Amino acid sequence: MAPLPEFNLAEATAILTRTPATMDTFLRGLPDTWVRRNEGNNTWSAFDIIGHLIFGERTDWMPRARTILEHGEARPFDPFDRFAQFKESQGKSLDQLLDEFARLRKENLAALDALKLQPEDLSRRGTHPALGVVTLSELLATWAAHDLTHLHQLSRVMAHQYRDSVGPWSAYLGVLHCAGHGA
Amino acid sequence: MAPLPEFNLAEATAILTRTPATMDTFLRGLPDTWVRRNEGNNTWSAFDIIGHLIFGERTDWMPRARTILEHGEARPFDPFDRFAQFKESQGKSLDQLLDEFARLRKENLAALDALKLQPEDLSRRGTHPALGVVTLSELLATWAAHDLTHLHQLSRVMAHQYRDSVGPWSAYLGVLHCAGHGA
Repeated sequence: MAPLPEFNLAEATAILTRTPATMDTFLRGLPDTWVRRNEGNNTWSAFDIIGHLIFGERTDWMPRARTILEHGEARPFDPFDRFAQFKESQGKSLDQLLDEFARLRKENLAALDALKLQPEDLSRRGTHPALGVVTLSELLATWAAHDLTHLHQLSRVMAHQYRDSVGPWSAYLGVLHCAGHGA
Repeated sequence: MAPLPEFNLAEATAILTRTPATMDTFLRGLPDTWVRRNEGNNTWSAFDIIGHLIFGERTDWMPRARTILEHGEARPFDPFDRFAQFKESQGKSLDQLLDEFARLRKENLAALDALKLQPEDLSRRGTHPALGVVTLSELLATWAAHDLTHLHQLSRVMAHQYRDSVGPWSAYLGVLHCAGHGA
């Protein structure tokens, strides 16, 4: 098996740049069956997932990058609230959330670009409140992989709605056999 | 837990209509790290997945719908070749595949619309070569869920590339704990 690629900032931002438009293209105008239903008690709908991505843009990725650059390991990151979107998204439409996610991501990528990170910056270290020492490159790689984990979740939540409708084909549809892995 | 929704043709086509543009928005122009790498021996890259979706448009969904409408249970579907894309996609670029997928899907949805299916048509039965008796609505639901299973696979294949780069955050990223479930 080929070794995994090393982190590359341009490759990470290629994902980060595309995610809001991808979510928009897929979700805008879809019936509520696809965007408002979840997988059962205490699980997330597509609507909840976009709210979570918004909250990450506000409080997680760039604030933590700045904490690393300004304080190094001395100051642990503020903990992230994984459930904030249930309050923050109340009364908003999916279209509003998609617009907000796109705007915040664009602002954050402009702010990232303005940092003009050098290769040696990527190994700078910070302190995660639960995981311990992490590097700036790990944070930025996780930002991109976090988009992917929620695209993975989104496709599973949506497919779940057709679990019965597909009849015996459920045996062949891998997504219907995904246990969720906590996201 | 709320009961799962019943199959609804307009809801299924809402997914089917959006998938090619979603794949295009996400994948076009991405570095090869994301589109040409797979999860190891005998697994699929994003490029392979789009090739597979193209082959489904050519030989699976609408041909099988027509078999049900014209022959009912009497004539089993032709088996589907899950590996055809490795030959069919050779020498093509990802951009070409994305264009081809969009064109074929558009043609197939126009052909589906031209059938002017009535509610009673959805319960018409056909014979799957391995699964036995299936209905037209199950076939159409599976067409949509099949898009979702490959979006699920795509996000996992891409996230896999950053399995090492995310460092200790791998514990929190559900997509990195997905075993694949055969697709």
